[in-house]
Amino acid sequence: MNHPAPPASVGRVALPAALLEALRDLYGDRLSVAEAVRAHHGRDESAFDPHLPDAVVFAERTHEIARTLALCAQHQIPVIPYGVGSSLEGHVLAVRGGISIDLSRMNRIVSIDADDLIATVEPGVTRKQLNDALRGTGLFFPIDPGADASLGGMCATRASGTNAVRYGSMRENVLGLEVALADGRVIRTGTRARKSSAGYDLTRLFVGSEGTLGVISEVTVRLHPLPEAVSAARCTFGGMVDAVNAVIQTIQLGVPIARAEFVDALAARSLNQYSHLTLKEAPQLFFEFHGSEASVAEQAKVVEQIVADHGGEQFEWATQPEDRSRLWNARHHAYFAMLQLKPGSRAITTDVCVPISRLAECIAGTEIDIAASDLPCPIVGHVGDGNFHVAILVDPNRPEEFDEAERLNALIVRRALALGGTCTGEHGVGLHKIGFMREEHGEDALDVMRAIKHALDPSNLLNPGKMFTPERTPS
Amino acid sequence: MNHPAPPASVGRVALPAALLEALRDLYGDRLSVAEAVRAHHGRDESAFDPHLPDAVVFAERTHEIARTLALCAQHQIPVIPYGVGSSLEGHVLAVRGGISIDLSRMNRIVSIDADDLIATVEPGVTRKQLNDALRGTGLFFPIDPGADASLGGMCATRASGTNAVRYGSMRENVLGLEVALADGRVIRTGTRARKSSAGYDLTRLFVGSEGTLGVISEVTVRLHPLPEAVSAARCTFGGMVDAVNAVIQTIQLGVPIARAEFVDALAARSLNQYSHLTLKEAPQLFFEFHGSEASVAEQAKVVEQIVADHGGEQFEWATQPEDRSRLWNARHHAYFAMLQLKPGSRAITTDVCVPISRLAECIAGTEIDIAASDLPCPIVGHVGDGNFHVAILVDPNRPEEFDEAERLNALIVRRALALGGTCTGEHGVGLHKIGFMREEHGEDALDVMRAIKHALDPSNLLNPGKMFTPERTPS
Repeated sequence: MNHPAPPASVGRVALPAALLEALRDLYGDRLSVAEAVRAHHGRDESAFDPHLPDAVVFAERTHEIARTLALCAQHQIPVIPYGVGSSLEGHVLAVRGGISIDLSRMNRIVSIDADDLIATVEPGVTRKQLNDALRGTGLFFPIDPGADASLGGMCATRASGTNAVRYGSMRENVLGLEVALADGRVIRTGTRARKSSAGYDLTRLFVGSEGTLGVISEVTVRLHPLPEAVSAARCTFGGMVDAVNAVIQTIQLGVPIARAEFVDALAARSLNQYSHLTLKEAPQLFFEFHGSEASVAEQAKVVEQIVADHGGEQFEWATQPEDRSRLWNARHHAYFAMLQLKPGSRAITTDVCVPISRLAECIAGTEIDIAASDLPCPIVGHVGDGNFHVAILVDPNRPEEFDEAERLNALIVRRALALGGTCTGEHGVGLHKIGFMREEHGEDALDVMRAIKHALDPSNLLNPGKMFTPERTPS
Repeated sequence: MNHPAPPASVGRVALPAALLEALRDLYGDRLSVAEAVRAHHGRDESAFDPHLPDAVVFAERTHEIARTLALCAQHQIPVIPYGVGSSLEGHVLAVRGGISIDLSRMNRIVSIDADDLIATVEPGVTRKQLNDALRGTGLFFPIDPGADASLGGMCATRASGTNAVRYGSMRENVLGLEVALADGRVIRTGTRARKSSAGYDLTRLFVGSEGTLGVISEVTVRLHPLPEAVSAARCTFGGMVDAVNAVIQTIQLGVPIARAEFVDALAARSLNQYSHLTLKEAPQLFFEFHGSEASVAEQAKVVEQIVADHGGEQFEWATQPEDRSRLWNARHHAYFAMLQLKPGSRAITTDVCVPISRLAECIAGTEIDIAASDLPCPIVGHVGDGNFHVAILVDPNRPEEFDEAERLNALIVRRALALGGTCTGEHGVGLHKIGFMREEHGEDALDVMRAIKHALDPSNLLNPGKMFTPERTPS
C-alpha cells in the first residue's frame, strides 16, 4: 500500500470512443493506452498512489496540444500536462482520469538570442539541455531545482532551487509564454522586452498555475552572463541554528551570494553514502560566490568572517571546477541519497519558506518536532531564501508512518504560516498542500483564484483536483 | 481645447441620492462634491481633457474602501482609486463618472522590518516618504519613477524608473498586497517569505491592474541594503545611436549598473534651462554604480572603456553626494523641464520598451520620425531596460498638433512592437494605449484579460474604460 491520493472514482468518466478515435487520427502511434505507459504517466516522485490517465498522447507541435484541448473540451474529458514527472506533490496524477499530454518530445531549442540574453524553448526542454545548448555563448540559465526538470514543468510549479537567492525563481526569469487554453485557442504572453506595463501580467499568472489554466507550449526565459569568477566553500557548525544564523546575517548584509545551501547531519551522512563523499556529519553550509575576481574574493571574505562569528569551522574551499561539480552534484542527488537512508522508503517532503529573520526559529522548532518522531527526517534547504525541506522517510507498507509523516508535515507547515511564511516555497501545491491553502491565503483570496480558474477553465478539465478545492469550504 | 478622452456621456449615470447619503454617513466631511475637488481628481499629468468624478471620498482605513466598494456595487456606480495623480496616461480620469477614492490620507508606514528587508505601507505613502522613513536603517526602496508617486499608484501601473535596470520594477519588488475587491471583500496576497509556489500569483495579477480589478489598500515591498559605495558619471556622444550602443554593450557584458539614463540634446537643453545646469547639449548618458568600493571602481572602469570605444567623451564624475543629487534631481524634473521648451505646451509621452539588442535601431528610426515633424520631441530613456520616452510637445489650443503627436506616437509604438517590444514599459495603458493592446497581445490574449476582469468585476465598475475595450473587436 502506498499513500492514498483522492479516490480514483471521484468524477471519473469513461473515455468516449469518439474522442479516442479523434486523438488516434491526430497522433497515430504517438497515442498510447498501454498500461505501462499510462502507469508511467500516472505517478511522480511523490509518495502518492498512482492515478493512471486513460490515454497518453506524445505531442510534437503546439497545434496538436491545441487540438487535444479542443477535443477534450468537446467531450468534457480532463487533460493533464506531463513533462518529466519530477514533481514531488502529485501534480501529474490523473485523479479524474483523462488524457495525459506528454510534452517530452517538444524539446527543441527554438532560439538563443545572446544579444538580448533570452532563449525560447519548447516546454519539454530540460534545464540541463538548455545549459548544454548555451555552451560557448557566455550565458547560462540559472534556475536549478535539482532534478533535471523540463522548463514547462518548472514554469508550472514556479520552481526555483539553489541559485534563486541571487538569480530569482521562475517568476523572475520567465519573460513570456505560449499557452494553449482550455478551448484550444493559443495565446502568447509577454514580449521580448525586459519590462512592460501593458495589461495584466498573464505570464506571471500562468507561471505557477500547475497546468490548471492552460498548457504551456513554449517558454521564453532570461539568461545571465556566466560569472567571470566562481568559488565554492563549505563549513560545518555545532548546531543547525548557528548555521542558519550565519546565512541570515549574510542576507541581511546584502552580500550577493549565488548559493547558500544547508545540509543537516543526517542529510550529510546520506550524501556521504550515496555520493562517496567525506563530509563531516554535522550541520553545514555550502556556499557559492559569483562575480568578478575581486567581487568573489570580497564576498568570500565577508562570509568567512560571518561564519567564524557563528562558530563555524574554517572554510573548506572547492576551488577546482571538478570539486565544485562533485559538491553540487551530490547536493542535487540529495533527494535520492536521503531515500537510501531507509531502503525502500518514500519521502513526504516539506517545502516551507519563511521570512529570513524567522528561519532560525522555524528550523529550531522543526528540529524539536522531528527529534520526537521515530521517522528519519534529514533536512536540506535553500536557506538564503528562507526555504528548507524535511524529507520524512516512510515505509510505504506501514500506513501509520504516513500518518506520522503527515502529522509532522502539518506541524511544520503551520509553524511556517504562523511565522509569515508559505506552505510551499518552490514545489507547488499539487495534491499535497491543498489542505493548507485556506490557512495560507484565506477563503476570500482562494475565491479569487477559483474565479480565475472558472473564467479560464469553466468545465474544470485542466489538471482537475489540484491546487485548491473547487468550492468554498463551508465556514 | 484639450486632448479629447472618450466622450464623457458614454455610460455615465447620475449618482443615486441613496449612495451619496450612505457615503456621507461613512465619510462625513471627508466626502466632497465641490467642483474644485472633483476637477482635481478628474485629471492627471496626461494631456487628456479632465473627466470629473461625481464625488470624491478621502479614505483613511481599509474598511472604508471596502464599504465604498460594496455600496458602489450595490448602486452600480464606478469607482476610481486616486493616489497623487501623477499618471501620464489618463488612469484616474472618471470617464464614466462615479466615485474617486482618494488614498492620500492612507499614508502611514505600517511597519519596517529591517531584518527581513521588508516594509509594509498604506497605499498613499509616496516613495520619498518611504525612503525618508528608512533613514538610519541602512536600507532603501529603489523604485523611482521620477515623480514622487504613491506606492499604491506605482503598484497599479507596475512602475519602474531609473533604478530598474539593477533592482527590477514593482513587479519584482512587491511582496504582497491587501486588496479590496469589487464586492467589498478584502483579501491579502502573498506572504512575507521571499518566494512561494502556493497558488496563482495574485500579487503579480494586481500589480499592473490599474485599479480595474480591485483597490490596493496596503502594500508590502522588498527593501535593499544601501550600497556601500555609489558613484555617478556622465558622458556625451556624437550621436544617439553611439550612446545607446554603449549601454547595450554594458548590459550584454552583465555589468551590474544601477542606472543608465539617456538624455538627448534637446532634453539636455531643457534640463540646463530648468535646473540651471551646464550640460553639453548633446546626446548623453548618466550612469550610476552601486556596490562595494572595489565593485564600483571595477564597474566604472569597464563602462568607461565601453564608452570610449563608442566615441564617448571622457567621463565626468559626480563624486560628491551633492553633485549626484543635483544630477538626478534634474533628471527627475525632466518631464516639467521638457514642457518648458514650449511654454504652455502639454506632452504626449511615448513609453516603448524593446529588447536591448533592438534599442539602437528603435531609437534611430524614432530620430528620423521626429526630425521630420514640426513638434519639439525631446527624448529621455531608461535605456538599460530598453525603455525610452519621447515627450511630444503640443499646443493645447491646436488640435492639429494633437493629431500630429498621435501620428508620431503610433509610428513609435508600431516600430517597437515590430521589434518585439511593448507599447508601455512603465507608464501603463490607461486611456492612451488601449488602441495598441490588440496589436501587442492579440485578441485571444486580450480575451483572457477580459475574462479575468469579468470574473473579478462582473459589472465593470472598477476604473471602467481603461486598459482594453470590454468587447472583442470584430475581425
